[in-house]
Amino acid sequence: MVPTQLRVIYGDTDQMGIVYYANYLRFFEAGRTEFLRAKGMRYRDVEERHRLLLPVTEAHVDYRASARYDDLLTVETSLAQLRRASLRFEYRVLRDGELLATGHTVHACLDPEGRFVRMPEEVAAVLRAGEPGA
Amino acid sequence: MVPTQLRVIYGDTDQMGIVYYANYLRFFEAGRTEFLRAKGMRYRDVEERHRLLLPVTEAHVDYRASARYDDLLTVETSLAQLRRASLRFEYRVLRDGELLATGHTVHACLDPEGRFVRMPEEVAAVLRAGEPGA
Amino acid sequence: MVPTQLRVIYGDTDQMGIVYYANYLRFFEAGRTEFLRAKGMRYRDVEERHRLLLPVTEAHVDYRASARYDDLLTVETSLAQLRRASLRFEYRVLRDGELLATGHTVHACLDPEGRFVRMPEEVAAVLRAGEPGA
Amino acid sequence: MVPTQLRVIYGDTDQMGIVYYANYLRFFEAGRTEFLRAKGMRYRDVEERHRLLLPVTEAHVDYRASARYDDLLTVETSLAQLRRASLRFEYRVLRDGELLATGHTVHACLDPEGRFVRMPEEVAAVLRAGEPGA
Repeated sequence: MVPTQLRVIYGDTDQMGIVYYANYLRFFEAGRTEFLRAKGMRYRDVEERHRLLLPVTEAHVDYRASARYDDLLTVETSLAQLRRASLRFEYRVLRDGELLATGHTVHACLDPEGRFVRMPEEVAAVLRAGEPGA
Repeated sequence: MVPTQLRVIYGDTDQMGIVYYANYLRFFEAGRTEFLRAKGMRYRDVEERHRLLLPVTEAHVDYRASARYDDLLTVETSLAQLRRASLRFEYRVLRDGELLATGHTVHACLDPEGRFVRMPEEVAAVLRAGEPGA
Repeated sequence: MVPTQLRVIYGDTDQMGIVYYANYLRFFEAGRTEFLRAKGMRYRDVEERHRLLLPVTEAHVDYRASARYDDLLTVETSLAQLRRASLRFEYRVLRDGELLATGHTVHACLDPEGRFVRMPEEVAAVLRAGEPGA
Repeated sequence: MVPTQLRVIYGDTDQMGIVYYANYLRFFEAGRTEFLRAKGMRYRDVEERHRLLLPVTEAHVDYRASARYDDLLTVETSLAQLRRASLRFEYRVLRDGELLATGHTVHACLDPEGRFVRMPEEVAAVLRAGEPGA
């Protein structure tokens, strides 16, 4: 699990005074990018060096409590599953230890031409490091 | 089912050249607002006159094919379930008849103070009109 | 001048209950895309067929009155200036005839390699058609 | 001047492979919030305790070079002008010392009912601290 901190800006909120529901998917993206970076890999290098794209094929969010303007959020990102040509991240969004939302994303492994490919072992090894659930 | 048309702008895309995954939740929102309008009710009136908020408690998207810049998308919105204090919308996003994404959102019924309330029968009747699945 | 209609969604608003200020630049983009379409040219074709990119080099907004959730806005887009290798659009955002915001964007003419190029006469002629100020 | 660091996410980019132009206004907002925080004041408290809203009345961006995915940007925010009932922030966006964009925002001082008010001296003193240009 890798934690990432995010500050909620005005532009993230809506007129209900809470973070607009779509923005949690932006927070998840920040979480999985920092997940990779914490393991020594940049997603930009996954694309450029390993010629691997990981588009989202499924996204899910359960909203439990509202995040608000200026909240300092923590996104906890875990690798939950790693298959030959797909992977699944799980996320927990917290504020001061209170769980606000959970969710997951599933990603396919594609080459730049959009064909399904097997995940390179080098990338898989980095992702798996220290993730017991994967 | 109520169809809504949307034009993809540059700001909806990302550097993969496709619509960024979080933006489908914006499209879903546009879909359910137009669902209500097509039945003669504005969501703004649900909030202001009926004192009913419908925050999202769950959101899900399955991505099948990519939407791209300048695509004219159709979001088909249906009411899938209507309970005492929650409801569920289902969505299909299409381009020229091709299914690009499906998904759903679940909403709680709250009063402006954030307490769970029973959905007013007047609102329920409008939502249910012509929706066989609800 | 070409008018474009836009519906404000919840995701466009912020906790002040009004449209977040950055979103006017999204509205401007929708306006200039429809400006081109109204003249028979798609911006996607400008990029793909004419190999011309028009990145924004300057953007400006003056906010006069607030747009709100569910407002049906009209963006009036005009071509204000057309030079050898740049152009300037001007925008007015209205709701029921009330002027909410004005602004402009300036665009450079680049080829796909990022070099400044002269605007093709074919594109210039289309843009200029019916625009007295350009 | 107060510097704020921001990481560009995929959701900030567009299909040109660069940060979408509207998102600089989000970066500016993050910059001015951290400007206040660095001086010991939270914008949330400006609204809640001082009953002062500072809506944007003018926004401007000059784009010089493109920000890209995963860039670590620095937004330098300065208070350029402080009047009885308005203020002006100026921004510079840099990556590794290279200037990518500059801009400014002008804000009006309003009370929660939307009337123009004089900026409270307590707030003005905090804003002015250490800002030679204001």
